[in-house]
Parts: sequence; C-alpha cells; structure tokens
Amino acid sequence: MHKVIYDTDPGVDDAMALLFLHRHADIDLIGITTVFGNASIETTTRNALFLKREWNIPAPVAKGASVTIDPSRKEGAWPTFVHGDDGLGNIDVPEVVDVPLDPRPAYKFIIDTVRANPGEVTLVAVGRMTNLALALKEDPDIAGLVKQVVIMGGNFYVPGNVTPVAEANIHGDPEAADIVLTAPWQVVVIGLDVTAITTMSRGYLGEMAARGDKAVQLLDKLSQFYIDFYKHAVEDGMMVHDSCACVYVVAPELFTTISGAMRVVCGGIADGQTIVKQDGRRFPPGDWDDLPSQIACTGIQSQEVIDLIRDTLLNA
Amino acid sequence: MHKVIYDTDPGVDDAMALLFLHRHADIDLIGITTVFGNASIETTTRNALFLKREWNIPAPVAKGASVTIDPSRKEGAWPTFVHGDDGLGNIDVPEVVDVPLDPRPAYKFIIDTVRANPGEVTLVAVGRMTNLALALKEDPDIAGLVKQVVIMGGNFYVPGNVTPVAEANIHGDPEAADIVLTAPWQVVVIGLDVTAITTMSRGYLGEMAARGDKAVQLLDKLSQFYIDFYKHAVEDGMMVHDSCACVYVVAPELFTTISGAMRVVCGGIADGQTIVKQDGRRFPPGDWDDLPSQIACTGIQSQEVIDLIRDTLLNA
Repeated sequence: MHKVIYDTDPGVDDAMALLFLHRHADIDLIGITTVFGNASIETTTRNALFLKREWNIPAPVAKGASVTIDPSRKEGAWPTFVHGDDGLGNIDVPEVVDVPLDPRPAYKFIIDTVRANPGEVTLVAVGRMTNLALALKEDPDIAGLVKQVVIMGGNFYVPGNVTPVAEANIHGDPEAADIVLTAPWQVVVIGLDVTAITTMSRGYLGEMAARGDKAVQLLDKLSQFYIDFYKHAVEDGMMVHDSCACVYVVAPELFTTISGAMRVVCGGIADGQTIVKQDGRRFPPGDWDDLPSQIACTGIQSQEVIDLIRDTLLNA
Repeated sequence: MHKVIYDTDPGVDDAMALLFLHRHADIDLIGITTVFGNASIETTTRNALFLKREWNIPAPVAKGASVTIDPSRKEGAWPTFVHGDDGLGNIDVPEVVDVPLDPRPAYKFIIDTVRANPGEVTLVAVGRMTNLALALKEDPDIAGLVKQVVIMGGNFYVPGNVTPVAEANIHGDPEAADIVLTAPWQVVVIGLDVTAITTMSRGYLGEMAARGDKAVQLLDKLSQFYIDFYKHAVEDGMMVHDSCACVYVVAPELFTTISGAMRVVCGGIADGQTIVKQDGRRFPPGDWDDLPSQIACTGIQSQEVIDLIRDTLLNA
C-alpha cells in the first residue's frame, strides 16, 4: 500500500486524479492538502471539501498556502478560462460546503503526518510547490523521512504552457519549486513531456460515465468546460496532467525517465523554467553541481495510462 | 549562386565548413570574418588566414571582435581541450601567416559588403554573434538588405553543451545573440537539435582523405584531435556543427523547421539559453510578443547532409 498525501488545487484534472487516488486499491489516501493556483485558496479548499463529500473520501483536508513563498511576487488573474469561475468547470459548486477542515495548515499537516509515518509517505503534489517548500523550511529533516515526492510540473525537452519554457505549476511559485527540487529527497517530476501527450477524449470519458457510478458522472460533468478549453491543443479531449502523477505511484513501469540535478529559474525571461542536468552529461562547473539527483519523466505509454485511469475509476 | 560572408572562429568544425563553402558550386564565398570563441581572436584570425592560404581561397579575411558586446562579461579559458592549443587540432599552425588582412574590422566589412550587394548576401555565422550584433548596432538598416542569416548556435528541445540549457556560441555572447535574433531580418538557427545528431566518423573522413586532394588531407589531419575529444559523446567521430549551417544554405530541404520569435536569456542560471516561442502556440502576453518570426531547425536528414559534405569536398 502506498500512503499518499495529495497536495492539490482543484481544478478539473485535479479532481480526476483525486478520484483515482481514492479508488486505487494499492493507494491509501491519508490526507489532502490544498494550495492556491488553479483558483484562490478559498476556492480550491472549498472544492476539495466538496469532492470529499460527494465522493465519500475519508481523508482529512488541510488548507494550505494562499500566496507564493516569496510574497513579493505579483499574482496574475486566476485561470478561470481553464477551470471555470468555480474551479470545477462551472457546475455550480455550493458556496459553502459544510465539511470540517483539519485544524492545521497544510505544511504542518504534512510535517506531522510524515513524522508519524517515517519512510512511508508519498507526497503527490500537483499544484504549486508552496506547501512542500513551507514544510521543508519549517522542518528540513522531513526530507529524510518521506518515501518519495511525485509532482506534476515542469517541462524539459518540450515547450511550456504558460511561457515558451515554463509550466504553470512551477511558474506559479518558482522559488518554492527550486526548494523542493534541490532538497535531499527523491522527487519524480511528471511534466509536460509526458502529460501533454496523454489525453482523454470526451467520448472516452463519456463512456466511462455511462458505465460508472455517480462519482464518475460528476467527474464527467465537471470536465466538460475544461475539455472545451483544450480545443486549441487537443482534438476533443483533455490532458490528464495530474492523473499522470498519480498513475506513476502505482505503475512507474509505464514511464521512461532520466535522472539528474534540477533547478528552477527564478526571474528573467525564463522565469519558472525547470532545468535538469542529466546525470552523465559533461558540463563545466555550474549551478547544478552537488545537488541531489532527481527523476524526470521523458516518456509515457499514454494509452495504458488512460486505460488504467478508466479501470481504476470504474472499479468502485 | 549564394553570395556568402562566413563569420567564423576556426576551430576544427569551422575549417570543414569553410572548405565546404569554398568548394560548393552554388556558393560564392565573398568574405571571411573572424570572431573570438573557439580561441582568441588572434588565433582564430591567424587560422583563417592559414586555411585561406593552404586552400587557395580568394575571399578576403577581416578580423573581428575580441570580446563580448557587453565588455563586463567575464571570459573563461579558451576551449583548447576541444580545438587544441592552436585552435586547429594541434597541427603546428605557423605562428605568423603572411597573408594580408582586409583593413576593415569585421563588422564594417559586413556592412560595406551587404550595402554593395543589397538583398543578395547570406551571412553564415558559426561562432559568437558579436560581429553581427556590432554591424546591426552601427548600421541597423542592413537588416533589410541581407538575404538571410544562417547561424550555428543554440538548442531548443535538446540539452545544451556548455550548460544544461545553453550552447557554446550563444552562451559565449548572449547579449549579442539576443540582438541578432530579434532584429528584423530572417535568421535560420541551426542548433544542437540537429547538429548533435549529425556526426562524421573518423573512418568516413579518412576515406575522404584517401580519395581527396591535399586540402581534404589537411582537414583530416586537423580533425583528429577534435574527434578524440568527442569520444565522450560520439563513438568515433565528430559532430559537424558548422557544416550543417553551410549545408542549409544550399539544401534546406534536408531540414525540418519550426518558426517563431526568439530570445536569448541574459543572466541567471539559464544564461545563454536560446528560446523560441513557436508561432501558433498560445501564451499570455510576454517577452516574445511583436518580435520577428525566425526559423529553428528541429530535424535533419543527417546521412544526406554528411554525404553532401563529402561530395562537395571531393568535387574539387
């Protein structure tokens, strides 16, 4: 069993990934921590509570960061054109969801849970890296106590999605991501190299809804707006970014990877770019020296991943 | 006929490219301008004069820049481990080559020659972009008078060769490259995406030398040190970086390309990275807006390119 804390900013593709974590037989979802990004922290937290309630997810929800770790960074508008005004595809999520929050802030929940389960917790982080960075700042020793960190973020040998070289989660808090990627724990980075080529069509999801229960039907409903948004890049479907990170936890054999030290560019025209110095490549001394070697996914068996998501969501 | 000014820092692969330009029937090599990079400006200029003499090249040689366009940039050591102490593979190039230089500095030679041949000159630049940037600074209107600019430099969707994201020619003078890539002329960028997969084996070159004349035999001799250097990346051969740019001039059909605005990162951990915002991709407003669309080579028919180099060099 993989004990997972899911750090998330729901978010449409976050919702699919949440249902995957909840339903996969080999995953024990022990906590949900929220972060700002796809919407404000109030909205993403409300959405996490809403999905917890609708899907009967026992894991507690802890509210996380509302701003970047460097508070002087300017925040843009929320990407409502991607995830809808309510962050879940404009399905009229109730303003208030009467489900209690964990009393701790997300970073503290992460620290406590990792310390209570030394060597056992996998952190799956699919939003900005702010909560993880705050946890590391507060208690650096947790790096040695976490089993692994799997993040959705970044891009290596493909273009970015918010700038020509930067992906939204990393670009949304580059200083936090640089802290997370250079810490002495094992990070697996599931970025656009693999997620941008892993798409679920509207029809495929619709068939899942036809065969599935109410939970899958809600997922299908809240995904329609997001699928409409993706028309510029996908024929008629959605990139399942966040689910790819969750699939990695249980089926790493569906990915090909490289390893190397990683840094995030903070400032300038490449702001928010994730850069890997692949192990074994020779360069003059530089900014990647003496950093831990992390794992970057560069290949994926997309159809197998999509099918595993379907099979997991339908095996309720 | 393509009227070509060759801006170069010989350099071993520069030498092969020079012989290609000299011998190709559709190219009229009307000038050679030197730049620092693979060695000091004194060495690269001496080497250009040496090759001009040995190979009976009529084109004049004009001496170019010795430092970056921003003189506050710090220069590292010359890459003698790549090109040898003499910049031509340690073949004991004479200290002084008694061939007259054009009296003008390279940037002035470029301006005068472009103005004397409006719309006809192709600039093939395979070193740092300093001379071209200086020419643009002195006389911005030449941008509209140049036929096209073909450069060897940069990398888009593959790693760099001097940092994880930067290629040596661009990294050697990022400010100059940013000027060149954002100017209103057509630049074709032949970078590591294509040159790093276009290698000539030692045996292939040796066979060329066996069949060729003294010029090819000298090329074979001066390339041995460089081939030794490349052992870490190529089985037994050399990347023919600069020749790829020259081949593009006469055989663009051997390349696949994308188009888009380009910028070069100046400063920070991504210093010297070349970034393209591919035309048609949607991003929020940013640093690539309203810039001219340039051409980036992302694919190459390597064997055809290698064979064309051979056939050209042997058709003396």
